[in-house]
Amino acid sequence: MNIDTTDVIEVLGTISFAISGTFAAVQKRLDPFGVLIIAFVTSIGGGTVRDLLLGDTPVAWMRDVNYCLLILVTSILTLFFKHHIKKFKVTLFLFDSLGLGLFTLVGVQKGIVFGLEPGMCIALGTITGCFGGIIRDTLLNTIPLIFRKEIYATACIAGGALYFGLLYFGLAADIAKIAVIVFIVTLRILVVKYKLALPRFGY
Amino acid sequence: MNIDTTDVIEVLGTISFAISGTFAAVQKRLDPFGVLIIAFVTSIGGGTVRDLLLGDTPVAWMRDVNYCLLILVTSILTLFFKHHIKKFKVTLFLFDSLGLGLFTLVGVQKGIVFGLEPGMCIALGTITGCFGGIIRDTLLNTIPLIFRKEIYATACIAGGALYFGLLYFGLAADIAKIAVIVFIVTLRILVVKYKLALPRFGY
Amino acid sequence: MNIDTTDVIEVLGTISFAISGTFAAVQKRLDPFGVLIIAFVTSIGGGTVRDLLLGDTPVAWMRDVNYCLLILVTSILTLFFKHHIKKFKVTLFLFDSLGLGLFTLVGVQKGIVFGLEPGMCIALGTITGCFGGIIRDTLLNTIPLIFRKEIYATACIAGGALYFGLLYFGLAADIAKIAVIVFIVTLRILVVKYKLALPRFGY
Repeated sequence: MNIDTTDVIEVLGTISFAISGTFAAVQKRLDPFGVLIIAFVTSIGGGTVRDLLLGDTPVAWMRDVNYCLLILVTSILTLFFKHHIKKFKVTLFLFDSLGLGLFTLVGVQKGIVFGLEPGMCIALGTITGCFGGIIRDTLLNTIPLIFRKEIYATACIAGGALYFGLLYFGLAADIAKIAVIVFIVTLRILVVKYKLALPRFGY
Repeated sequence: MNIDTTDVIEVLGTISFAISGTFAAVQKRLDPFGVLIIAFVTSIGGGTVRDLLLGDTPVAWMRDVNYCLLILVTSILTLFFKHHIKKFKVTLFLFDSLGLGLFTLVGVQKGIVFGLEPGMCIALGTITGCFGGIIRDTLLNTIPLIFRKEIYATACIAGGALYFGLLYFGLAADIAKIAVIVFIVTLRILVVKYKLALPRFGY
Repeated sequence: MNIDTTDVIEVLGTISFAISGTFAAVQKRLDPFGVLIIAFVTSIGGGTVRDLLLGDTPVAWMRDVNYCLLILVTSILTLFFKHHIKKFKVTLFLFDSLGLGLFTLVGVQKGIVFGLEPGMCIALGTITGCFGGIIRDTLLNTIPLIFRKEIYATACIAGGALYFGLLYFGLAADIAKIAVIVFIVTLRILVVKYKLALPRFGY
């Protein structure tokens, strides 16, 4: 791992998703290894599905043991300090949204590298950002949160579209990335703060 | 997309699965993006699992944006006209069965192209036909319908076996395909009409 | 299939997982094809996920029809003789643990062949051993047993680590394999007999 801005944020995203997975698993009263597995799939689920769909195998986490160690350490620390961390719910939420933003960008970028059309790149970014949480909730036997509450995938899709829009208008890729992350995080904060949600359809 | 019979039916199958996914998601009161995602996975789930198992990546829907647009438009139209469409339950069921029949054939064909044994081709066809619904129901947190009601996978397997049987007896592939689709659709209609089901095993 | 020790135990493992899948599906009152599908995914799920993550496609069971036939025959026999087999719960448990041990080794070995680091090989072995059961329980809409009861993944991880430890100290691979299988089976028996479990974390 080279140390540049993207890596720093990716690491933060990985940490955040590992924390969110750990909390979700603890709430279901899983044993420690169950907790670790849930933390792991939450962190690497999105990137794994992305790499499988692209055929870029062995998948990313198998080629870089550092991310596995990072998730392991994060999850264990979360288990020990969970009463303390619970007070920083806002911090957690920010990291989670930051992770969502960056993982979306990582997915979009990878789609571009693989020569996919913009719409497909946005889909790939959304998958990268959201699938960890989907797998986590499916394994924990709840309807994935993404399908029920708060604009989540929508933020990824809007962020991905914004990215291509900014590039189209000639913005440098690095600045566009930061703008997209700020956009996704801000959107998520506004949505949660004002309890915004897309209207649902029912019979 | 060339316009030939197969494409027409495949498009109809895609539309039908998108409609079925939309209805299933609406019943669970998901927000619009949740609905779109469920419609999407229901339509492309089977083909995606098939391509992943074969290692034919990037998976099909990433290479043809038309199917994504088709699903998007279908799902949105279904949301707006759902009260109207509900009256056409029989039409929906027929399209769903037609889609099942065709997707089974598409899977079988792809297995043949990849040089798999007939039994494996039938398995691949069954996966292509059924997996969209399995993923849909798993994400929506219900026991997949396929495992509980109406002969479903059985129709795919029987149809796939019939296809090889017809080819073995020298029938032209195109005629065999149509025969298999008619067979699967008819079997499904009879099963649903007369509430047939395989006997279950219980303690 | 050459007949050597590994194949014999792998066949036994496949049989055991097929039996466990059949029983789980029967308990949920699925129809016979639902039962066969669950038996099938329980037996081949772990190896399939392993091959997908590695990009070793078409996945193993598509290339060897013998395993599919074995699962089919096992599941049908289990359905017919299930009242009889239920009395041999201990035998079943032993075969299940044996399968877990061997599939773990198969996964570890495959990781070594693909040049992965030891930690990744152990992860791959654990995935190979455990994922069949995870998919089975997810499809049947229960929290995967692996996350709730008895040291299961833990046994795979410990066994995988032991394997590398034994190789490091110069043991022949074949002897190390048998030692690891005996270790995993013994660990599982002790855990179940004395109702050992890792402590859980709860609020």
